Amino acid sequence: MQQALAAARQSLYITSPNPRVGCVIVHHNQIIARGATQMAGGAHAEVMAIRQAQSQGFTAWDEAVFYVTLEPCSHHGRTPPCVEALIALKPKQVVIAMLDPNPVVAGRGVQQLRTAGIEVITGVETEAALVINVGFVSRMVRNLPWVWLKTASSLDGRTALANGESKWITGAAARLDGQQFRARSCVVLTGIGTVLADDPQLNVRDIATPRQPIRAVIDSQLRFPLDAKMLDGHPVWIFTCVQQPDRLQPLADKNAQVIVLNANADGQVDLHSVMRWLAQQQINEVHVEAGARLNGALLQAGYVDSLISYIAPVLLGEGRPVTQINPLSHLDQAYRFELLQSQKVGDDVRLIMRQPQSWHTLLSHLQQLSQ
Amino acid sequence: MQQALAAARQSLYITSPNPRVGCVIVHHNQIIARGATQMAGGAHAEVMAIRQAQSQGFTAWDEAVFYVTLEPCSHHGRTPPCVEALIALKPKQVVIAMLDPNPVVAGRGVQQLRTAGIEVITGVETEAALVINVGFVSRMVRNLPWVWLKTASSLDGRTALANGESKWITGAAARLDGQQFRARSCVVLTGIGTVLADDPQLNVRDIATPRQPIRAVIDSQLRFPLDAKMLDGHPVWIFTCVQQPDRLQPLADKNAQVIVLNANADGQVDLHSVMRWLAQQQINEVHVEAGARLNGALLQAGYVDSLISYIAPVLLGEGRPVTQINPLSHLDQAYRFELLQSQKVGDDVRLIMRQPQSWHTLLSHLQQLSQ
Repeated sequence: MQQALAAARQSLYITSPNPRVGCVIVHHNQIIARGATQMAGGAHAEVMAIRQAQSQGFTAWDEAVFYVTLEPCSHHGRTPPCVEALIALKPKQVVIAMLDPNPVVAGRGVQQLRTAGIEVITGVETEAALVINVGFVSRMVRNLPWVWLKTASSLDGRTALANGESKWITGAAARLDGQQFRARSCVVLTGIGTVLADDPQLNVRDIATPRQPIRAVIDSQLRFPLDAKMLDGHPVWIFTCVQQPDRLQPLADKNAQVIVLNANADGQVDLHSVMRWLAQQQINEVHVEAGARLNGALLQAGYVDSLISYIAPVLLGEGRPVTQINPLSHLDQAYRFELLQSQKVGDDVRLIMRQPQSWHTLLSHLQQLSQ
Repeated sequence: MQQALAAARQSLYITSPNPRVGCVIVHHNQIIARGATQMAGGAHAEVMAIRQAQSQGFTAWDEAVFYVTLEPCSHHGRTPPCVEALIALKPKQVVIAMLDPNPVVAGRGVQQLRTAGIEVITGVETEAALVINVGFVSRMVRNLPWVWLKTASSLDGRTALANGESKWITGAAARLDGQQFRARSCVVLTGIGTVLADDPQLNVRDIATPRQPIRAVIDSQLRFPLDAKMLDGHPVWIFTCVQQPDRLQPLADKNAQVIVLNANADGQVDLHSVMRWLAQQQINEVHVEAGARLNGALLQAGYVDSLISYIAPVLLGEGRPVTQINPLSHLDQAYRFELLQSQKVGDDVRLIMRQPQSWHTLLSHLQQLSQ
């Protein structure tokens, strides 16, 4: 299963909106083939592995064991169901890390395999499999994408000096490292304040990927400038809550789509509407790189599921904060995460954290599916 | 030498004001004895190792190699010079990690060994040896102690909420871990603000040590309360810049010594005078646990040599800062450290950092000594 998980991780940047899946075929305790899900519409992991085995002339399917990181699909999507391919071969055993929370699968794949007389084991390395597909599972279970918030700050929590100077607090290695989290996301989200102040591209530049995430901007008053660097021909989504019909066509000409959503009491785009809309567009993972205001709004609304903090070993004193949130009166109101990993990246440190309740919701759903 | 360094580390809590030294005796590529410096006035590492070898009946000294983390002393201190003991045995070779920057040694030990016909190799693992005795070397080279600043904060650099609530941001494991840095220090330093607000003991409680560091407080206006928990019978030093003769005796009765030093332009105790005074008292390492004001004053005065930051995976928004410093107008004025280590400690992360220039001063001095 470790090998199958490793195969799934190789598809981290490409399969969206489909889950990343790895498959390993074992015969007499030897791995004879591996497969990983291709870009959406391409072959699934099981099919890739079967093809590899067949290309080597393998035929002893009744002695073969399949290790798959996700329950094989039982429905016709853009490709025929993997379950049918497996049943046709009738391997000895199929070992599955987690069931597919997609309601059109959700145990049916396992059931069909068993009905066909194939031995099935489930629940092996479920947590590791969930890490790889946390966004897909979130969309299926919660009807919300999984939101990663990335921050880069000093030891004393400053993202810029009081005068706005921010280049650079963290180093080049940290900035490069951050792009891998953009690359795995479906959408990179920021606020109009960041667009106006920094004019970022927010694309994946320095690591190889065949797929660029869509850039999205919360822009309540629709101030998005037509000369923004982000308008590079790749799609941009702009969420607003004002109607300005004359601005739509010039933006559309640059491949920027304006989505008008509800406003909240403060006249800002309602974040819940944003998240629901993104889930409807089959967005699994959202990667946020924004200023204190949007960071704080997402945090307070409970939408920050993972936090990636790059911290430079530097003290700045006064400056711009990571988040702008309402003052807390007790420490038990603090926004507390689970620290999963700390690692030096160049001269800085990267902390990877997770919101415990978000994780628990997804994991317990998968565990219930297995019962 | 790795074994000798490990032996030296075993004396980390006890030898102050003497350096921590480890010694390993090797015969035919076998370690036959180890020694580490005992409490001040006790035996040095070389003598401990020699005694151990002799107790086993070892006599083949002309085939023995000594690995010592610090140049053997050539002067009569509280114990006779180790060089004399070595010359009496005349081993084949002595390998030394770093020369002793103490001006009364500073190469004389090596010279005397060589004159006696013993082969001497120096400069093996000098940096690792300096890490262990950074405070001793600092005092010898700079006439200043090495200052560790410990902070405990949220991800966004808060040590407490705006209302002062600070119990607890970091967890019990981090608080326990922090005591090892107290235990290795000669003095634990804080400010009167912390004494009045938190009434801390600042002693070593939860790890075994035969020696308590002296507690010291910067208390410019001599406001130290007679019922402070810190007045527990162990010595306390109070630095002030006001004369209040009637307050001295009640404090002295509780083993607290008041030291009157120069004031700076703001009427605060001059920090340079504090550091010089501490060095005169043979204080090698100072461990600071203080509030934003003293932290900031030490940082701005250039006295923070090592920084230990415990960071909790929590966002608090507004609150008390780690340091209070003058606003910076450019990022190149930032107080930047070198990140040496990041490690999870319980639910939190611990970063160990060093001021590059401070380290360079000490290391280059040792390297020049070796030439």
